[in-house]
Amino acid sequence: MYPDVHSVQRITSIGAGPIGGGWAAHFLARGYDVTAYVHSDSEIPALMAIIDTAWISLTTLGLAKGASLDRLTITTDLAAAVKDAQFIQESAPERLAIKQALYAQLGRLAPQNCIIASSTSGLTMSEIQADCPTPERTVIGHPFNPPYLLALVEIIGGDATDPGAVQWAEAFYKVAGKAPLVMLKEIPGFIATRLQEALWREALHMVANGEATPDQIDTALMNGPAARMAVQGQCMAFHVACGAGGMATNLDQFGPALKLPWTRLDAPELTKELRDRMVEGCNAIAGDRPFQEMAAQRDKEIVAVLNAIKTARA
Amino acid sequence: MYPDVHSVQRITSIGAGPIGGGWAAHFLARGYDVTAYVHSDSEIPALMAIIDTAWISLTTLGLAKGASLDRLTITTDLAAAVKDAQFIQESAPERLAIKQALYAQLGRLAPQNCIIASSTSGLTMSEIQADCPTPERTVIGHPFNPPYLLALVEIIGGDATDPGAVQWAEAFYKVAGKAPLVMLKEIPGFIATRLQEALWREALHMVANGEATPDQIDTALMNGPAARMAVQGQCMAFHVACGAGGMATNLDQFGPALKLPWTRLDAPELTKELRDRMVEGCNAIAGDRPFQEMAAQRDKEIVAVLNAIKTARA
Repeated sequence: MYPDVHSVQRITSIGAGPIGGGWAAHFLARGYDVTAYVHSDSEIPALMAIIDTAWISLTTLGLAKGASLDRLTITTDLAAAVKDAQFIQESAPERLAIKQALYAQLGRLAPQNCIIASSTSGLTMSEIQADCPTPERTVIGHPFNPPYLLALVEIIGGDATDPGAVQWAEAFYKVAGKAPLVMLKEIPGFIATRLQEALWREALHMVANGEATPDQIDTALMNGPAARMAVQGQCMAFHVACGAGGMATNLDQFGPALKLPWTRLDAPELTKELRDRMVEGCNAIAGDRPFQEMAAQRDKEIVAVLNAIKTARA
Repeated sequence: MYPDVHSVQRITSIGAGPIGGGWAAHFLARGYDVTAYVHSDSEIPALMAIIDTAWISLTTLGLAKGASLDRLTITTDLAAAVKDAQFIQESAPERLAIKQALYAQLGRLAPQNCIIASSTSGLTMSEIQADCPTPERTVIGHPFNPPYLLALVEIIGGDATDPGAVQWAEAFYKVAGKAPLVMLKEIPGFIATRLQEALWREALHMVANGEATPDQIDTALMNGPAARMAVQGQCMAFHVACGAGGMATNLDQFGPALKLPWTRLDAPELTKELRDRMVEGCNAIAGDRPFQEMAAQRDKEIVAVLNAIKTARA
């Protein structure tokens, strides 16, 4: 029913903002023909500024064979924009009424076997697809800003989405150079934004209470955990930091710290089941690598990151 | 009263764990004479393993002139360990009774004008210094793991600490190659750990509710916000992402999103005062740099980070 993910050549990116423009630049850099739909001609200069800026970084990271800005077409005609599309990435404004009206049209105008993915960060696909006549091929494909640099795309369908469409989107994004993550449940904020939002709200509390300034928040993040988080997620960070005992040691020894007022967020009850899920999850990621090997690799990568930032700032 | 921070040559690191060993390695790499105090000879092999591992990374980052592992002395005699110290970094086990007993001794044994800094992540200096006969020179100097790679040191005194000791510690850590952050208030978890802990608790909730696996949490972080957080803190990330309007646009436009269930952490009330503090804080960091320049620099640094990680993994 859906095309072979390797055969996709023509992509339509809807939206002239940083996300829509960023997606257009990403797909161009990966060698696709890209049609960008904008609401009005007046948006074109802003769109091109985003794409031109992104192109500098994308060139440094390495363009795919045949990639060219000449393969970009811009149009204000929605029907023409999606007529021949093999994949549509929608990054329209974050207002439900706008998205619903758009999907009502896209559902008719886009080729039947063309997957439509939404960049929404705050709405669910079950809501967005409500008025779409062909909702089975609509999914969420949520990027992280800037979308031409950060690889994550969180994927999930709505109530009326075909599970096959979700699978197709995962396979396609992988081929298109992204790091897709198919979510287990439709939860507000998805995974990465929820993690970031918890951190952000704690930061706002600290500023509100005179406990930290915005400058201190940013300094603490940049010089503290961030470089490590870029090379090792928080689960594996604790797993590896606890030596041979791993996550089991972390939870069994520091579990009581979850009751301490170290953030305004109350922790969940540390049940046997939660403990085991965390431990088994980390053991699965670690495989048979001893912790010393993982710590040495972590250090090697942090050193590379620190030196890279130093050089880029010099 | 306190020595010139540039004149410090002899440092004592107390503790044989990853933090104590990491500190010893850091100070050795910066060219200091380091005396490591361990509780028992049996801890020496573990300590040396930590220092030897750290030394690989520290060598890659660049050693200070004269830096050498030969300048490390290890002893189990606390009096001998601190007798000639010009700065003491204490990383003993995180148990209040142990720390209090240790500071009761250190307060007598260490030279009067020698600052004593604790690596504690969970206790306050007001508690730790309770039985110390000379508490005025005791401060918290909280690093981030691994302490030989991550630059952040959060500093704050206790009730009996001389404000001059806090200032001295800030100046000294800067000379010693760290990124010190003097906190405004003694709050549990300090700044960076609170931010990380909020994120961590949200992650545990997601795993507990079957919304995400540990692998998905880590994938979302590493491929999502982390590389950006390593080069730009969360306040400036939102400031720059909102274009010319900056943080003001972010809060005025997305403020209502703080009420959405995007994390289990409730946000503070977005008062006029909090809004202004955030906006003024970000404007102060930005100075007269236009957002395009900051975005371009952010992108340049993220590209450097991504390429560095790729190379380190190849």
